[in-house]
Amino acid sequence: MAFTTKASIASFGGKLLKLTHVSSSTGTDMAVNVFLPPQALTTPPQKVPVLIFLSGLTCSPENCSEKGFLQHAAARRGLAIVYPDTSPKGIDIAGAKDTYDFGEAASFYIDATQPPYAGIYNMETYLTAELPAALFGDAELGAWLDPARVSITGHSMGGHGALTLYLKNPGKYASVSAFAPISNPTRCPWGEKAFAGYLGDDRDEWKKHDATELLAGWVGRDLKALIDVGTGDNFYKQGQLLPENFEAAAEKAGVTGYEVRYQKDYDHSYYFISTFSDDHVEHAAKYLGL
Amino acid sequence: MAFTTKASIASFGGKLLKLTHVSSSTGTDMAVNVFLPPQALTTPPQKVPVLIFLSGLTCSPENCSEKGFLQHAAARRGLAIVYPDTSPKGIDIAGAKDTYDFGEAASFYIDATQPPYAGIYNMETYLTAELPAALFGDAELGAWLDPARVSITGHSMGGHGALTLYLKNPGKYASVSAFAPISNPTRCPWGEKAFAGYLGDDRDEWKKHDATELLAGWVGRDLKALIDVGTGDNFYKQGQLLPENFEAAAEKAGVTGYEVRYQKDYDHSYYFISTFSDDHVEHAAKYLGL
Repeated sequence: MAFTTKASIASFGGKLLKLTHVSSSTGTDMAVNVFLPPQALTTPPQKVPVLIFLSGLTCSPENCSEKGFLQHAAARRGLAIVYPDTSPKGIDIAGAKDTYDFGEAASFYIDATQPPYAGIYNMETYLTAELPAALFGDAELGAWLDPARVSITGHSMGGHGALTLYLKNPGKYASVSAFAPISNPTRCPWGEKAFAGYLGDDRDEWKKHDATELLAGWVGRDLKALIDVGTGDNFYKQGQLLPENFEAAAEKAGVTGYEVRYQKDYDHSYYFISTFSDDHVEHAAKYLGL
Repeated sequence: MAFTTKASIASFGGKLLKLTHVSSSTGTDMAVNVFLPPQALTTPPQKVPVLIFLSGLTCSPENCSEKGFLQHAAARRGLAIVYPDTSPKGIDIAGAKDTYDFGEAASFYIDATQPPYAGIYNMETYLTAELPAALFGDAELGAWLDPARVSITGHSMGGHGALTLYLKNPGKYASVSAFAPISNPTRCPWGEKAFAGYLGDDRDEWKKHDATELLAGWVGRDLKALIDVGTGDNFYKQGQLLPENFEAAAEKAGVTGYEVRYQKDYDHSYYFISTFSDDHVEHAAKYLGL
């Protein structure tokens, strides 16, 4: 296949593949983990729906594969989980490794327009075009993954990624969910720093990549969205997440079919994700026809 | 309480407490994580049964708390999980930090008799006497933890710990289970190195701390044991685990009530543990009257 298999690990009756491939979008090697549930690993292979999980700041595909517990429900319901990489890595860009909330640790899943990131940090193109084409078109992986049934979820920066890619691409994903998403990045410090660095100073450009802003112009009505936020999450308390803004924008836009749950005392960690990952897999399964 | 609370983290409807206390057995600070299920956190508090999880080489209480997912079934069934520390740490002993399979990374849960470990590496005393007394006698924790209903489990070196502490202390634990346990340490490189270092050269002394050897003199008949081993586990293939020796000894001793499951393709990692942790919690729950 076009991917190099670094490891194949038995997990919950299925297997987790740790893969890498060369990305033309970024010009770098990109890692991606794919969990195949037992329902796919039949003879002949069976195509199963796919849930994409976008990770948060500082993460790699490894963190949620190990600590998110999505495989538990995915194995029961027969979903594959795809854990993409979080940014281009292994290239020398000034400043890209200096902070936890910008550069290699924090692509924000957009296509950068500003030097030195433009032409390399093309994560939106990578996630919406190159990676799906590579996975679904692969001679081996394509036998297990159904390109017609894909949903998306993510955590923190990855929650921002999931919500924005969903809103920007009507019909591409069957549903969306998010754990503690950065819901209104144009109005929080993390988002302001990232968008200024990747997109420049024009705040109107930033709005094209902000889930709360995108709601006003969204063509659909039924959002098919589940969002969980922990009330003990320090980043929520610091105003980095702003889910209330997303809720207000959804109400103003007349959007329905979404649930934002404030989970008492939960923090921003994988302890929070693992507690509610069954629910998020079930949410996706419902819209993926399982 | 006698413990210092380093963190209290919401998890699966309950909470995970990260605690430390000063141990008189070891003369050091010891960490211990305690997961309290929602069933305990009522008003007034409810005493719930306890499952002790002993970790493997190089681990701390953190690894399994984050990646083992015992909390999932424990929250459903109403068990507390206690994740003890794996060795005395923070003291300067020559050689104790040099290798991954001896010293700080690998106490083997015994009381050392050889210098420089004697008098400090008293893990058996710590686990069977001091830690339970501290937990159950604590004004706060004691309201949640039932001293009359305790089972034990563990992984790799912790599987050895669980099996040997169970066999040495009839009636102390309601049941035992193990993930990929070092089942016959007197006959594998890990065990030989550890026992020589902690116990000296007398191999008859070693046998007192070997689950396979202990079976011959065990007073019970119904072992109430569940053991899982992955057939893709490199340490199993290298002869570090030797579960077949344990099975043969159990058969020879006329012991019943145990199941050793060889799980196809599973490795030695937390991917393996998390896949089967529901089963091990259910095994304990059955014998703890839940």
